[in-house]
Amino acid sequence: MDAEVQATPTTPTVREAGEFAVVAAVTARLPQSALVLLGPGDDAAVVRAPDGRVVVTTDVLVEGVHFRRDWSSALEVGRKAAAQNLADVAAMGAVPTSVVVGLAAPADLPVAWAESLADGLRTECAVVSVSVVGGDMTRAGQVVISVTALGDLEGRDPVTRSGARPGDLVVVAGRLGRSAAGLALHLRGDAGLLQRHAELAAAHRVPAPPYAAGPALARAGASALLDTSDGLLQDLGHVARGSGVRLELDAAALEDDVRALAACAEELGEDPWAWVLGGGEDHALAGCVPAGTALPPGVRVVGRVVAGSPEVVVPGVARPGSTGWDSYR
Amino acid sequence: MDAEVQATPTTPTVREAGEFAVVAAVTARLPQSALVLLGPGDDAAVVRAPDGRVVVTTDVLVEGVHFRRDWSSALEVGRKAAAQNLADVAAMGAVPTSVVVGLAAPADLPVAWAESLADGLRTECAVVSVSVVGGDMTRAGQVVISVTALGDLEGRDPVTRSGARPGDLVVVAGRLGRSAAGLALHLRGDAGLLQRHAELAAAHRVPAPPYAAGPALARAGASALLDTSDGLLQDLGHVARGSGVRLELDAAALEDDVRALAACAEELGEDPWAWVLGGGEDHALAGCVPAGTALPPGVRVVGRVVAGSPEVVVPGVARPGSTGWDSYR
Repeated sequence: MDAEVQATPTTPTVREAGEFAVVAAVTARLPQSALVLLGPGDDAAVVRAPDGRVVVTTDVLVEGVHFRRDWSSALEVGRKAAAQNLADVAAMGAVPTSVVVGLAAPADLPVAWAESLADGLRTECAVVSVSVVGGDMTRAGQVVISVTALGDLEGRDPVTRSGARPGDLVVVAGRLGRSAAGLALHLRGDAGLLQRHAELAAAHRVPAPPYAAGPALARAGASALLDTSDGLLQDLGHVARGSGVRLELDAAALEDDVRALAACAEELGEDPWAWVLGGGEDHALAGCVPAGTALPPGVRVVGRVVAGSPEVVVPGVARPGSTGWDSYR
Repeated sequence: MDAEVQATPTTPTVREAGEFAVVAAVTARLPQSALVLLGPGDDAAVVRAPDGRVVVTTDVLVEGVHFRRDWSSALEVGRKAAAQNLADVAAMGAVPTSVVVGLAAPADLPVAWAESLADGLRTECAVVSVSVVGGDMTRAGQVVISVTALGDLEGRDPVTRSGARPGDLVVVAGRLGRSAAGLALHLRGDAGLLQRHAELAAAHRVPAPPYAAGPALARAGASALLDTSDGLLQDLGHVARGSGVRLELDAAALEDDVRALAACAEELGEDPWAWVLGGGEDHALAGCVPAGTALPPGVRVVGRVVAGSPEVVVPGVARPGSTGWDSYR
């Protein structure tokens, strides 16, 4: 983790540089993809929408709520801000096409922090070959980053939360519980712990959503799909209620996720199952496919869909206390 | 202006209601337009993009910077938040198609405030027959509202800031200086003043951008167009530099705007020309058209484009001290 960027005579604050200079400096770090017909600098950008529809999603990240500047570098915050929105596009079965960003920040924010944030946004967007096409910058008491991502469905129907049917399999792409473990590590604030479990700590600061699995599952005929931003059980609960079905997860299929967290959990005295079932922010994708579907790379079966009351159960695993995220609790 | 909404036993706070209940209450107030293929409630929305391209713009409004809860009702804040983004879409010569909204707010925000904000967003979106198709809600120390608006170019080229040519006319749609006058009135905080000039005070709280003039000017062949969100002189400066031309405004053509503010300016001891030339947030549209263009309704000529150093001049008018907005100064 980088040290926090401090304002110095050679790295002025945004107040000293002025809004227009900062916007220019940030924009210069944002190359434009072939999908962009008109990039930053006008009242609005213009982006291709090849199939005549556009997928759109927005998320807000707040300093002290979603990230801390003493835990995460600006580059990491930028990557995370982009990742969680790009994952939402993938969770519709779409491919991302562009991102716009709003940054509200205190006037004493170092310009270098804003520039590194732009680098992080660019880096994560580059994973899916898109670019930041526009934005806005203004003053606030704390850093607030709003990202809106657009996507293209390539002619397919969006994969919603309501299409799961009894007989389908429950599938997951991406790893589970790692961000929650990393958060627990950062909350302890012990340098030795953070060093021993550096990969998990990093997974909290920068998630690695399985973007390609979204459109791949859509092509394979997925009946439901979503981003597990609030935790596997809570998010699959939306599928259960949306589709009117019962999801039975197979504890054995999640053992690998639990095992990968076991050493860290033991050292912290925490329950790795709570992280795997209740931890959000890994931005794994979860959903359902008809039985017999050829699974795309990186997608694994974790349960099955049955008729019954719309809920998610994991036979054999004690229900963790916290099963998800409420921004106000 | 409505009194500020207070939390009471019958209007709980967002902490008391919980994130999901508030999102549900807000979403229920947002009917969906025919352009929307999939509305709020999934990972992302899906909206029509008829011409295979999408116009996208984003703006962030911060409590204490862009609005005050003791000046503006939640409904007014919602209208303003939508208006400034919809105006940016119109300023490309496009028609708006949808809006997404992020709301970060203290946990003690009354649910009723969030609901009224949604009503305001819906009301302003309805002016251009679009809807709020998605959003995000989270906790923050002050109210921060991020709006992203999408639009459709109906097969036309976007109207940028760089197409003005010597011989063109400078045009404006919408009124100028009213929001700045209203801000000055609110800053005095005198109830009698606010009552005597209620229309101007309201113009600061809720702008009335001339949305239809944007696509109408594009159809008429406008060579440049923008939203005067930072003030007429500052924004037309972008056209001058972007197009490499000199803009000569005709003071006589702006006399009506000045006259409409004269009584208020005299009472406050301020210069109405500073409001008309330097005041932003009316979201009037300004741009250039070739000489001889048939002007759409509501569009007036305010000057001409000549060869010369890229700047904006108003012969006969002393330059006001402040000529625009910098978020950090």
